[in-house]
Amino acid sequence: MIAELLCIGTELLMGQVLNTNAQFISRRLSALGVTQYHQTVVGDNADRLEAAYRLALSRADVVITSGGLGPTVDDITKRIAAKVAGQPLVPFPEAEEMLRARFQQYHRPMTENNLSQTMFTPDTTLLLNPNGTAPGAIVPMGGGKVVIHLPGPPRELEPMFVNQVEPYLRRRSGQTLVSRYVRIFGMGESEVDTRLGDLELGGNPTLSPYCSLGEVQLRATAGAATQEDAIELLTPLLATVQERLGGVIYAIEPDDKGSLAKSAVEALKRRKWTCATCESLTGGMISAELVTIPGASEVVRGGFITYQTDTKTLLAGVAAETIARKGVVSAEVAAAMAEGARTRLGVDVAVSATGLAGPDGGTAECPVGTVFVGVATEKGTRVLDLHLTGNRDHIRTLAMKHALNALRVEADTPSVIG
Amino acid sequence: MIAELLCIGTELLMGQVLNTNAQFISRRLSALGVTQYHQTVVGDNADRLEAAYRLALSRADVVITSGGLGPTVDDITKRIAAKVAGQPLVPFPEAEEMLRARFQQYHRPMTENNLSQTMFTPDTTLLLNPNGTAPGAIVPMGGGKVVIHLPGPPRELEPMFVNQVEPYLRRRSGQTLVSRYVRIFGMGESEVDTRLGDLELGGNPTLSPYCSLGEVQLRATAGAATQEDAIELLTPLLATVQERLGGVIYAIEPDDKGSLAKSAVEALKRRKWTCATCESLTGGMISAELVTIPGASEVVRGGFITYQTDTKTLLAGVAAETIARKGVVSAEVAAAMAEGARTRLGVDVAVSATGLAGPDGGTAECPVGTVFVGVATEKGTRVLDLHLTGNRDHIRTLAMKHALNALRVEADTPSVIG
Repeated sequence: MIAELLCIGTELLMGQVLNTNAQFISRRLSALGVTQYHQTVVGDNADRLEAAYRLALSRADVVITSGGLGPTVDDITKRIAAKVAGQPLVPFPEAEEMLRARFQQYHRPMTENNLSQTMFTPDTTLLLNPNGTAPGAIVPMGGGKVVIHLPGPPRELEPMFVNQVEPYLRRRSGQTLVSRYVRIFGMGESEVDTRLGDLELGGNPTLSPYCSLGEVQLRATAGAATQEDAIELLTPLLATVQERLGGVIYAIEPDDKGSLAKSAVEALKRRKWTCATCESLTGGMISAELVTIPGASEVVRGGFITYQTDTKTLLAGVAAETIARKGVVSAEVAAAMAEGARTRLGVDVAVSATGLAGPDGGTAECPVGTVFVGVATEKGTRVLDLHLTGNRDHIRTLAMKHALNALRVEADTPSVIG
Repeated sequence: MIAELLCIGTELLMGQVLNTNAQFISRRLSALGVTQYHQTVVGDNADRLEAAYRLALSRADVVITSGGLGPTVDDITKRIAAKVAGQPLVPFPEAEEMLRARFQQYHRPMTENNLSQTMFTPDTTLLLNPNGTAPGAIVPMGGGKVVIHLPGPPRELEPMFVNQVEPYLRRRSGQTLVSRYVRIFGMGESEVDTRLGDLELGGNPTLSPYCSLGEVQLRATAGAATQEDAIELLTPLLATVQERLGGVIYAIEPDDKGSLAKSAVEALKRRKWTCATCESLTGGMISAELVTIPGASEVVRGGFITYQTDTKTLLAGVAAETIARKGVVSAEVAAAMAEGARTRLGVDVAVSATGLAGPDGGTAECPVGTVFVGVATEKGTRVLDLHLTGNRDHIRTLAMKHALNALRVEADTPSVIG
C-alpha cells in the first residue's frame, strides 16, 4: 500500500508553523509498513490544491491531508477533494449534532458558517474529533483509492490518526504490525551500524536506526497475521541486538516514548531511592527533565542550582579551598557538589554537573566542552570526566543526558522489557 | 520571484527526521518577500527525483534543494539536477582543495568517494560550507531558472542560507527587505488580531502574526531600494502597534531570536541586578531557560529546586506552619519561596513557582493548572495567581514563561528597540 501526504496551509509555506504532522504521520505509517514516496505542501489555493490531489492520487492508494477543515472560506480541503471525486457535499446530521453539542460544552454560540464542517460526500466515513470541532473523514475517490482528511492542529490530528486511521489502514492491509524500540546511550551511530549492519535489511522483521543528540534508537518491526506471531518474529532479532550491544541499551519499549529521564525515574522507583541534583552548566535541565515524567515526585526531592562559583560553597557546601586549588570545573568539585546535595537533601543518590558550555571561557587545560558529572551514594562517589563537542546547547544537553544516564546506571541495571 | 522547496531524503519519508529546514527556509523566504506555492519531499530515488525537479522547474524560478550532497551512492541530488540541466558534472579544483583542507583539519583520511562532492556543472556558483564537507551550489538550469543545492544538516544549511543564498536572492530581486519582530506576552492571539486586524494587510509594509504557547509574535516587513527607506516605511507601523498594544510588548528586535529569557537577562543586566529562582512544579525550567542565554552568569546566581513539600522548608526556609495552614500551592508559599531564595542567595530579585501541573492531584479548590508565581525584591514581594490550561507540559511551560516575564517586568520597563 502506498500513501502520500498532502499538507494544506499557507502558514506552512510562510514558515509560521513547523510541520510536525509530516513527521508524526510518516513515523506511524513507516511503523505500519505503509510506503511513502512523496510529501507535498500546498497553500489555501483551489487550483493548486486540485492539481496536487490529482497528482497524488495518480501515485498513491491513500492520500492523507492535514489542515483546512475549519469553517472559514480558506478551508477548502474537503470541497476540492469532492470536486476531484465528482461528488457533491451533503449534510451529515450526526456530524451537526456532535458539533452543536461541542459548542454547548464550550459555552459558545455556533455561527452558521460552522455548518460547513458537517458536509461530506455521500460515501464518506466520519472520524470523530474529541479534541476539536472539525471531524476528519475517509473519502472514497473511485478505483479503490481514498483521501483521508485530518485536522491541522497536532493535538487533534495525532489521537485521530492513532485511534481511528491506523485501525482502518491495518484492516486495509490485512496485517498486524508490532514494533519494539531499542534505546541506546553511550555508543555512536557508526559503531551501532558496524555491529548491527547485517541485520538492517528489509524484509520481515525490519530493523531501522535513527539518531538524536548523543542517542541512537532502533525500531524493530514485524508483520504477521496475529500479534503473537509478530512478537515471535521479533524475539530472536531483539536477542541478537542485546547480545551485540550489551549495556548501552537502556530500554526496550513497545512505543517510542522512552527517554533517559523515564528510565532513570523508573530505576529509582524500583530501587525505592530518592534523588537530588546539583547543577552548574546545566542550570536546572537535569531536574527539569526528570520532572517531565508524571509521578517523578515520588523519587525527585529537589536540588541546587549553583551557577555562580561561590554558590557551590554557599548552597552545596563545596569547600572554597577545593575550588581555589582544583578549579571550579574539576572532578573534585563535581564530587563535592553531588555529596553536598546528597547530604543536605537527605537522599539516596545525587548527581551533579560542572563544566564549560562556552562559547567563551575555554583555555588550553580546560577547553569548552570539558564537563564533570558526579554521582554520590552512601557507598561513595564517582565522577565522569567528559569531553563534549558541539555548540553551547549541545554541550549542555549532552551533559544532562550523561547525568541522567549515570543516575539510571547507579540506581539499576538497564530496564529491558522483552 | 517564485521559489519552491525540494527536500530530498528517505529519512524524511520514514519520519526519522523532523523537517525543520522547510520551516527555516520558508520563514527566511517569506521575510525576503519571495513567494512559495509548493514544497515537496522525495526519497533518494533517481526517477522520482528527476520528475520532482521537472515539475518544480515548471512552476518556480528558483528551486531550493536540501539534502543528498554527501559522498555516498544515495546522494543523487546534484547528479539528477545536472541530468535535467543537460550538463556534465566536472571537477572543481577549488572545491577539492577546500575538501582536502577540511579533512586535514579533522585529522581524518579522505576516501576517494568524497571527490564526488567536488563535481558540479560548469556554470555552477559554489557556496562555501564552513560547517561541513559538502559545498552548496547555485546551478543555472536555462531560461533564467536556477537550482540551489543546500546540505541537509541544519547547522550547515542555516548559515549557508543566511550568509550566501539570501544575498544572492536579494540581488536577484533588486530590493532590500527589512523586518522587525514584535514579541508579545500576556495577550491572546484573538485580542491582538482585534486590535491590529486592520493593519494586517498585504502590500508594503506587511504585518503578520504567529503564535506559540502563551506568546504572539508579529513580523513587520518593508521592502525598498535601500535599508534606510525600508526602515522609514516600518517606523509609523511599529508606532501604531506599540500604541495599540502597550505594555504587553516585551521586545521589538531585528531578528526572531528574542525570548522572554533573553529580555529578562537583558533587563537584569541593565539594572545591574542579580537573580535567583525557587522552583517547584517547573523543577528547574525557569533557571535552565535563563542560562540558555550566553552571559547569563553575570546575573543568574543560582537557585533551589524544591519539588517535594518539605524541601521548601529545608532549602528555602518556608515555614512548615504556612504550608500546613495555606497549602503547598498557595500565594503565601510562593511568596515565602521567593523571599527565601532572595535572602539565602543574597540577590536583588528572586522568582518562585508552585502549582499543580497534573495530570492527577487536582481538587475543587485547587484544580490542575493552579499556579502561583512569586517575585521578591528588597521593596517587597508580589504574587501572580494563575489559572493555566493545557496538559502537564503546557502548564509547566506557561508557569515558566509567567515567571520569566515577572522577572523582566520587575527588573525593567519593556525593552523596546525602535
